Amino acid sequence: MSELITGIGELTTHSGEYGRLTDAAVVIDGGRIAWVGSAASAPAADTRTDAGGRAVLPGWVDTHTHIVFAGDRGAEFEARMAGAPYVAGGITSTVDATRAATADELFARADSLRREAERQGTTYLETKTGYGLDVDTEVMSARIGAQVADTVTYLGAHIVPAGVDRRDYIDLVTGPMLAAVRPYVDAIDVFCETGAFTVDESREILRAGAAAGLALRVHGNQLGRSGGVALAVELDAASVDHCNHLDAADIDALAGSDTVATFLPVCDLSTREPFGPARQLLDAGGRIALATNCNPGTSFTTSMALCVATAVLQMHLTIEEAVFAATRGAARVVGRVEGSDAVGVIAPGSRADLQMLDAPSIAHLAYRPGVPLTAAVWRGGHAVVPAP
Amino acid sequence: MSELITGIGELTTHSGEYGRLTDAAVVIDGGRIAWVGSAASAPAADTRTDAGGRAVLPGWVDTHTHIVFAGDRGAEFEARMAGAPYVAGGITSTVDATRAATADELFARADSLRREAERQGTTYLETKTGYGLDVDTEVMSARIGAQVADTVTYLGAHIVPAGVDRRDYIDLVTGPMLAAVRPYVDAIDVFCETGAFTVDESREILRAGAAAGLALRVHGNQLGRSGGVALAVELDAASVDHCNHLDAADIDALAGSDTVATFLPVCDLSTREPFGPARQLLDAGGRIALATNCNPGTSFTTSMALCVATAVLQMHLTIEEAVFAATRGAARVVGRVEGSDAVGVIAPGSRADLQMLDAPSIAHLAYRPGVPLTAAVWRGGHAVVPAP
Ligand SMILES: [Zn+2]
Ligand SMILES: [Zn+2]
Repeated sequence: MSELITGIGELTTHSGEYGRLTDAAVVIDGGRIAWVGSAASAPAADTRTDAGGRAVLPGWVDTHTHIVFAGDRGAEFEARMAGAPYVAGGITSTVDATRAATADELFARADSLRREAERQGTTYLETKTGYGLDVDTEVMSARIGAQVADTVTYLGAHIVPAGVDRRDYIDLVTGPMLAAVRPYVDAIDVFCETGAFTVDESREILRAGAAAGLALRVHGNQLGRSGGVALAVELDAASVDHCNHLDAADIDALAGSDTVATFLPVCDLSTREPFGPARQLLDAGGRIALATNCNPGTSFTTSMALCVATAVLQMHLTIEEAVFAATRGAARVVGRVEGSDAVGVIAPGSRADLQMLDAPSIAHLAYRPGVPLTAAVWRGGHAVVPAP
Repeated sequence: MSELITGIGELTTHSGEYGRLTDAAVVIDGGRIAWVGSAASAPAADTRTDAGGRAVLPGWVDTHTHIVFAGDRGAEFEARMAGAPYVAGGITSTVDATRAATADELFARADSLRREAERQGTTYLETKTGYGLDVDTEVMSARIGAQVADTVTYLGAHIVPAGVDRRDYIDLVTGPMLAAVRPYVDAIDVFCETGAFTVDESREILRAGAAAGLALRVHGNQLGRSGGVALAVELDAASVDHCNHLDAADIDALAGSDTVATFLPVCDLSTREPFGPARQLLDAGGRIALATNCNPGTSFTTSMALCVATAVLQMHLTIEEAVFAATRGAARVVGRVEGSDAVGVIAPGSRADLQMLDAPSIAHLAYRPGVPLTAAVWRGGHAVVPAP
């Protein structure tokens, strides 16, 4: 069953660089993009959807979430907004609740968040372990992650759990825990920050992951110059995430590397941290991505649209730069750039992951902040949100 | 037909001050709230809706919009975000398009924005004239405003239109134009800012409105200390809106008055202006409201939820303060505070304007920014967004 989507007022392809076509059409067949071009020259197909002048773009690629968890931190959030100091025990409370939860409970919550994201246009989703911090719960989290997400990152090195010796825990993370989660995960991540893991510990953990064939990710430079960015570049990591605090040397290092800097603007809003210098990094020639960091403590959102709007309005990206960073730029983090694996792009042969906006242009993602603009979503060619 | 809404996890009534009840129920009858109390003691009703633990609160009261307009400024917005200087001709381009539009076109656009707002929980809406700036188009705008909104504000004094003598225009605004729009409007507003109207001109215009029996509103202190705030207090205006730039004297004057300061946080985001000192004004004892300022130039949003989230995350209001400012605090601006006229409150006798969130608490409005959380909306007792 092929489907022709025509009457597209503005089609953002990301084939070439930004590529915005007007009066365009797309044909989907067998879950892939079969054809892209002008509406006037579109071929016939089994079914036909009229976009009515609306904008179509690649589905969001959200490469940083933590949606496998249990527990409720709404009251903690409200107290923090009212001025209560941030309690370092936040991750620990989620770890306790996650360990106490059943697999069914964890799956139900994670799948509900995945569906919530999908209804808002997210068609490729990463998630992480990291609220188990013991072998059984990390494995359960990884397995559930693989059921709900497109790719799973192993974050045993989120924090050292209470009551466990630091050296013993690093040995566990790089040894038996790594071996046990390995069948379910594609990448390894470490929280390289004061209070979590040092640069040397992070290097050891990431090298163990690399030896196991995993791609490398780093949580770095969120609360200060943690050294996470330099480490990510040193190890040729796929991405270093947060990046709130970068100096000129960090920006130079990133710009001279293949490591993507993933900015998490709604996390910055939710923690009242300053935004990272995405504008300066782009100007220096660096690669960036935008992601939600969906998690119950510091960024409980699934809205890639708000990440894009915030990146434009408050981080001074252009609309095109922000949309690219939330789709094709993010695809680089998860190695989905070329050929039939590619996501975040609308080109013949790529997976048919598209979203249609209730708006004539991607500009409206920042021009109309907060307004739910998702009109339709296709994932692998399947209309998960049917067109109006 | 009475309706019982029960199983409410958290009910924000604003009867008393913030009033959040748990395990609550509400009965709606004849478009009004008939009963409020604990779920366990709820009376029977003709129909029954189970909130399933979700939060229920008053519908949003959006007291500052400009939704009667024509034309498209998306490209101008995108260019501005990419660094193009703000072109002062923005309002003028909307005026030209509005004058060229038919009444049907203006109605269709305004009604579409009204429905978009309603789907997001807005149950009481103000709109303004101000893109006509000649008698015929101002009257047409006021008439359409009265069709789509709950209350209409006359903003003939938006700017002096091109090609018209300044003194002649003020005479028109305070004379024949005021008389012609009078049947359709409840308040008069003036843009008291450099490039628009001086304090003395604004005073003359507002006094003419007061003499015609209209409530007073002011656009003031948006781009600098325009004097609009002091003028609003001097004339006992219902509200002064924007308030980005307030010094200690302005804050004292507002705190000692009945004038509400209406903050427009998404406008500030969209124009990259600093947020106004709502926190300091609350601490000084002032009254505040939050509104969208929905308009095609500087704040093209209908999302009161994003106004609330931004007020919490970036302006340091508590959740309760922000929700109050977007409902019962805003109701004061439009004089809908008491008895059966009251909106923004869930109390026996008040209009049955309610929204249900896909969340257990109003905290989630800021805890889950950007996520569409509207689960159901009742306006005047009618389920305009049916419960799930
Ligand atoms: Zn994270
Ligand atoms: Zn305004």
